[in-house]
Amino acid sequence: MPELRKDPITGTWVIISEERKKRPKYYQIVVDKDLSIPENCPFCVGNEAMTPPETFALRPDHSPPNGPGWELRVVPNKYPALRVEGSLRKSGEGFYDKMNGIGAHEVIIETPRHQHTWFDPDSGTLICRTLLAAKARILDLKKDTRFKYIMVFKNFGPTAGATLSHSHTQLIALPVVPLRVQEEIEGARAHYELKERCIFCDIIQYEGEADRRLLNENEHFTVLAPYAPRFSFELAVYPKRHNPTFESTPDAELDSLGSILSETISKMARLLNRPDYNFIIHNAPCYNNVGDFYHWHIEFMPVLARVAGFEWGTGFYINPISPEESVQSLKAV
Amino acid sequence: MPELRKDPITGTWVIISEERKKRPKYYQIVVDKDLSIPENCPFCVGNEAMTPPETFALRPDHSPPNGPGWELRVVPNKYPALRVEGSLRKSGEGFYDKMNGIGAHEVIIETPRHQHTWFDPDSGTLICRTLLAAKARILDLKKDTRFKYIMVFKNFGPTAGATLSHSHTQLIALPVVPLRVQEEIEGARAHYELKERCIFCDIIQYEGEADRRLLNENEHFTVLAPYAPRFSFELAVYPKRHNPTFESTPDAELDSLGSILSETISKMARLLNRPDYNFIIHNAPCYNNVGDFYHWHIEFMPVLARVAGFEWGTGFYINPISPEESVQSLKAV
Repeated sequence: MPELRKDPITGTWVIISEERKKRPKYYQIVVDKDLSIPENCPFCVGNEAMTPPETFALRPDHSPPNGPGWELRVVPNKYPALRVEGSLRKSGEGFYDKMNGIGAHEVIIETPRHQHTWFDPDSGTLICRTLLAAKARILDLKKDTRFKYIMVFKNFGPTAGATLSHSHTQLIALPVVPLRVQEEIEGARAHYELKERCIFCDIIQYEGEADRRLLNENEHFTVLAPYAPRFSFELAVYPKRHNPTFESTPDAELDSLGSILSETISKMARLLNRPDYNFIIHNAPCYNNVGDFYHWHIEFMPVLARVAGFEWGTGFYINPISPEESVQSLKAV
Repeated sequence: MPELRKDPITGTWVIISEERKKRPKYYQIVVDKDLSIPENCPFCVGNEAMTPPETFALRPDHSPPNGPGWELRVVPNKYPALRVEGSLRKSGEGFYDKMNGIGAHEVIIETPRHQHTWFDPDSGTLICRTLLAAKARILDLKKDTRFKYIMVFKNFGPTAGATLSHSHTQLIALPVVPLRVQEEIEGARAHYELKERCIFCDIIQYEGEADRRLLNENEHFTVLAPYAPRFSFELAVYPKRHNPTFESTPDAELDSLGSILSETISKMARLLNRPDYNFIIHNAPCYNNVGDFYHWHIEFMPVLARVAGFEWGTGFYINPISPEESVQSLKAV
């Protein structure tokens, strides 16, 4: 029997409909991946001149910027969605509201090796240094008071929206707090006003006791399938200690996060044949009074099906696999 | 210079970033479409036994149900996301909320001819009879008081989420009003409380005068690009007369809607090489007091790019083409 489930934070309802998984082609798993190195990959070592100048790099050999010698580079996006230059202007157009597109859009080139990915068994170090770079860039970008929200995300593979195959993560600094983030904050605030507790802390405790959707945990982090996931095999990663901001996480804890993510993603790779995926850090806004009730976390979503008209029209998602089943399958890997 | 624009109804911000369209592959246009007829298409004439028994049909020859002779059939979805049987039960699970998946999920098989689509030059009749069938099914499903919202949508092509190529439209009746619909209603309510006017009527009037985003109109309907579209070439279709519910539209007006949709979609077909698309009817909930301020309408979105991590994480969309430019390109066809 299908079930409707409501996400306690955003209020989004989800249909858990196991029936639909009997459909032919109910999710597509792409079997062949092109892992060959394209000519002139702008993220490969030696091609540093193909990107804008770097804003951050890890260069253990102390090599000069914008040439070889790096382990990781951060560069502005060559085709940015937002621009850093100028001052923020808000205006009306007829009865509409607009503002100019001030912001920053950067790319973390995680590795000089084209075929090195988060699926590799030794990816803990790769993931950890990506997180350290994201932390450093957030701390720097937050100095710019025009930015209200900084978004860190990774699209891996063409069906997840990646246009380059070389492993990379993106940062976008925005002059407004996005609606979905606001909704999440409002949901968390309502819970706090009622209970005087952080809803994310409550979820971590409840899921730890219930042990039906818990996939993995270590000293600092918990990996679980959300109660009302929008997508099959969607996972959430929470720091166990209450903390609203990702960038205040100590480096040692990011190391522990790199390890648990590497383990999790490697299970995902084996179960679902290295799926394309989206990885998103949900963080508190730059200027905020959300410290008591907001709790930063990660959303991890393999891309297994297409989002279609129903989802766009309603904000109502159809997910053919329950979180309990997805956790069981991943545990069995 | 990119722009941020806020949708006046939902509060969603959109970045209009023309810069991004300079990217290679900034949108993918699939050149080859497989229009061959698969063996055993369950929607083709002669294969009626492959679907559940019909709930509605147009049979000009008065042929008996569930055999050949039809022009259009409506059948329950063979793999439904929701089930009609049973009573609605709401319950808790730990501190989560859930209800069982009561609802209806039907498919309008629009034509017996496998290769007949909304792109065809003569598609006005095809679209009109699809809309008439949707109206008839909504009026029938609304008698079931368990249903709070009925969603009508069409996914055309694999990248839009269609798993069968034979032209069809879907209906889903839900036991709750979806969040995105609620948000739209709340936005419209706030405008009405401030101005005593329907915001959709205001948009139709403003866009008619401004004439920057207006694509087409006839006696009863207006086709325009929204001020803050989430997707390239996204269009909205509004009835000119204030009306909250699609199903109360007179049949003669649905004929006029079929014509204007056929013209619009045929332009889209020529400009964008028959893109995959999503078509969604935004309708008032079944039981509502939204008559003064809600106004039913259609959302039409060709699928030209992938939705990626940024959009999922923020509800903030990056659109590389302004609505003014998309309307100009479509007008020039």
